[in-house]
Amino acid sequence: MSMYNSFVLFGATGDLAQHKLWPALYWLVAEGQLLDLPFIVCVGRRKMDETAYEKFVKDAVIQSVGSAFTTSIWDSLMRHTRYESGMFEDPELYTRVKSILKEQEAVRGGKSTHYFYLAVPPVHYETILTNLKDAALVGKRTGPTQSQARLLIEKPFGRDLATSEHLENVVSSLFAEEQIYRIDHYLGKQTVQNILALRFANGIVEPTWNNEFIDHVQIQLLEKDGVGSRGAFYDGVGALRDVVQNHMLQMLAFVAMEQPVSFDSMHLREARIQALMALNPIGVNDVPTNVVRGQYKGYTSEPNVARDSQTETFVALKVSLNTPRWHGVPFYLRTGKSMENSVAEISLHYKKPAVCVGPVCLFPEPQVMRNVLAIRISPDHGVGLRLMGKKPGAGLDLETLAMEEMQKPGRSRKAAYERLILDALRGDQTLFADTREVNLSWRFSTQIFEGWTSRQPPLFPYEAHTMGPNASDGLLSTDERSWYLHDR
Amino acid sequence: MSMYNSFVLFGATGDLAQHKLWPALYWLVAEGQLLDLPFIVCVGRRKMDETAYEKFVKDAVIQSVGSAFTTSIWDSLMRHTRYESGMFEDPELYTRVKSILKEQEAVRGGKSTHYFYLAVPPVHYETILTNLKDAALVGKRTGPTQSQARLLIEKPFGRDLATSEHLENVVSSLFAEEQIYRIDHYLGKQTVQNILALRFANGIVEPTWNNEFIDHVQIQLLEKDGVGSRGAFYDGVGALRDVVQNHMLQMLAFVAMEQPVSFDSMHLREARIQALMALNPIGVNDVPTNVVRGQYKGYTSEPNVARDSQTETFVALKVSLNTPRWHGVPFYLRTGKSMENSVAEISLHYKKPAVCVGPVCLFPEPQVMRNVLAIRISPDHGVGLRLMGKKPGAGLDLETLAMEEMQKPGRSRKAAYERLILDALRGDQTLFADTREVNLSWRFSTQIFEGWTSRQPPLFPYEAHTMGPNASDGLLSTDERSWYLHDR
Repeated sequence: MSMYNSFVLFGATGDLAQHKLWPALYWLVAEGQLLDLPFIVCVGRRKMDETAYEKFVKDAVIQSVGSAFTTSIWDSLMRHTRYESGMFEDPELYTRVKSILKEQEAVRGGKSTHYFYLAVPPVHYETILTNLKDAALVGKRTGPTQSQARLLIEKPFGRDLATSEHLENVVSSLFAEEQIYRIDHYLGKQTVQNILALRFANGIVEPTWNNEFIDHVQIQLLEKDGVGSRGAFYDGVGALRDVVQNHMLQMLAFVAMEQPVSFDSMHLREARIQALMALNPIGVNDVPTNVVRGQYKGYTSEPNVARDSQTETFVALKVSLNTPRWHGVPFYLRTGKSMENSVAEISLHYKKPAVCVGPVCLFPEPQVMRNVLAIRISPDHGVGLRLMGKKPGAGLDLETLAMEEMQKPGRSRKAAYERLILDALRGDQTLFADTREVNLSWRFSTQIFEGWTSRQPPLFPYEAHTMGPNASDGLLSTDERSWYLHDR
Repeated sequence: MSMYNSFVLFGATGDLAQHKLWPALYWLVAEGQLLDLPFIVCVGRRKMDETAYEKFVKDAVIQSVGSAFTTSIWDSLMRHTRYESGMFEDPELYTRVKSILKEQEAVRGGKSTHYFYLAVPPVHYETILTNLKDAALVGKRTGPTQSQARLLIEKPFGRDLATSEHLENVVSSLFAEEQIYRIDHYLGKQTVQNILALRFANGIVEPTWNNEFIDHVQIQLLEKDGVGSRGAFYDGVGALRDVVQNHMLQMLAFVAMEQPVSFDSMHLREARIQALMALNPIGVNDVPTNVVRGQYKGYTSEPNVARDSQTETFVALKVSLNTPRWHGVPFYLRTGKSMENSVAEISLHYKKPAVCVGPVCLFPEPQVMRNVLAIRISPDHGVGLRLMGKKPGAGLDLETLAMEEMQKPGRSRKAAYERLILDALRGDQTLFADTREVNLSWRFSTQIFEGWTSRQPPLFPYEAHTMGPNASDGLLSTDERSWYLHDR
């Protein structure tokens, strides 16, 4: 009996489906990455027939794919696509989806693995999952042949520890961990592998990646844009939930983790979880000194943002880890919208060498800056190194030397969603979040929310397109450090 | 009583005086580097009057200085210049020089510090020095006011340990060490300072500059040209005497030395001497396995080279140092004429990280190359770093990343001889060789000559404009290493 894959795409008329998932599906088919054409059941609340739905997505795909668009590929994809409209609360919808899936199994004479993709706002997750269960479309299976259903859900997974745990309870009652693909795709596979290669394949890096050599670590994710059209979503979320709780703690985990047994997704995940478990919680009373929140001027005038919004569009944090490797090494995290530029970078700042022995200094001490190993994640990808060198000319004055090897953006065309869909089809969970990871991240973040609520530290306003409030610089200057971005 | 400087330039009609020293003197005066115009007594064997001598050097200076040549500066310099011809063996010559110097002291009404510059073949050193002594022009002085005479001599300082020690005995009977400036200017001040800055001002470099992190060191000085018109000189010298004994051991000393107390010339010199003292001698019996000598094909057809010459134009050595810092770390040295290209580079090769733990390898082990920190000395100046990174595309294959910060040649116009003359006038001996350094270097090199004589290892022929004989590669491949030059 042949096997094939079916996607049941909830939220099929949403932005994500239209602009990301459909172009990704098209490319995967066009490039022959899928052995068999998948069967695709599109579920949306909007009433339209299949012709209308095809037009709705085709335009977006053509726009994304450009001149590479091939009608024959598109048509064969469409022959295996159905559109079904309905309200997510309506049990009848799920009965209809079930019969469509069964019908296709009869036609193909094969058995399908169902991928339920929840491309909908998180508020609908529980409704959909409960109905899928009631319709007996999903259910925790045991044994590999029984594990027919897979769940793909988009972040955010809850909005704090309690809501996250509730969602996890619902999900884990229906799916085993290996059936769940939590999409939180900030770090693409290439980026993760770049970090792993830099860290573990270099004799000058691997043995110095610890508190004997490293003074501190910085992790930054800065966006030049404001909230734009995403005000309604963003205002209920804020920077801490939007990127710190997930993306930035994920980056932190890759930096802080011990060497994994192998680079299998399971081993990497375990290593990251160990790192997150070692993260010192920022207690409620420590929030005012270790966390800086800000809001860019003009944010409350953005569309669909509350005029008295107290949502943070900027966060800077100082955190630490209880491991022998990182004892005494602070990790500084900074993220914000409406920043001076868009850049994502991890940087390791080496301790300064001892240029003074007693009263004798080999160099003017203030000129000696820390070496910095920078891992650029966006907009370009690569590695940078700041060294000290002699300034040309007479005397032994120092200057910084910036070296780097950067790949310009767009060198790899494969978009994140193609990679994620392929990984899910192959059962590779490297780039997907694990329930324990999600739980640990929420545990850490929720204490910060509680500190904000109970201690009411200031929400610092900052000028649009700057590097955030002064208090963020103060977080580092107190420690005689400063924010750094690699720049030639 | 005013003080001024006099140069007594032996070999005033030679190439060195014409093309290097005179342009340097012109620039120093033109740029106001000398407070007072020096008095210059030019001594040559060629008979010519002062007008003829002026023309002889003026043409060379104009050619070197170009459009910046200013007649008024030249004329004022010439007003303080004398030319005196004679045979170096003739005591009368020295009497005439002495009276010229005395006459000038009377004219200026001041006291001169005499710089005796021996820009002549080494065979004349002893003759000139003995005559200077007999004429009471020089003599070991004690106390600062008495130390009126300085000696500047060009390498080579002897041709083995015995001849070097003999010369040193003559020199040191006439001058204290601080009066002697042995010109062996391979490493310019800027280059030395670049090395010091890179090594001691960087937190990722200084603590890893030892046998815990470094697998081996390479020092290379390669010249694309053959001997050209220098056959007569070179054939009696060879690569070991010409560059290994002095330049390359000097580079080795800067790499291997411990952190000096300060960067004062005295402290640097002591640190270098300590390193050279720790150099393991290559015993006569070890010469065949640790030293490879070669001669490029066509060398014996070069002008003024013996047709049956056994002079080496290529040497590769494997040496080691008896210090805790470098125990177990071989230093590989390679130099040659008629090489594939011209480059001088010091490179530190980091140990590979442990990518395999038991049977599990994080990366395909053969792909993991050593990190290399390369200090380029010529033709450009700068630092390069070879890291490993992930090869773009699917899979976790590695590739090398070459990063660098290089200054193109010619950025600093100041020629070596201007710097050296200025340093001598200022009493800065950083760039001049010390008698103990010279002695240690000859001690090391002479054992290799003895090994060549007694053990008669092969003189490998190699094709012109290649990287030398295969045996040189074998020296490293036996140790599972290979020669490396930084290349983007």
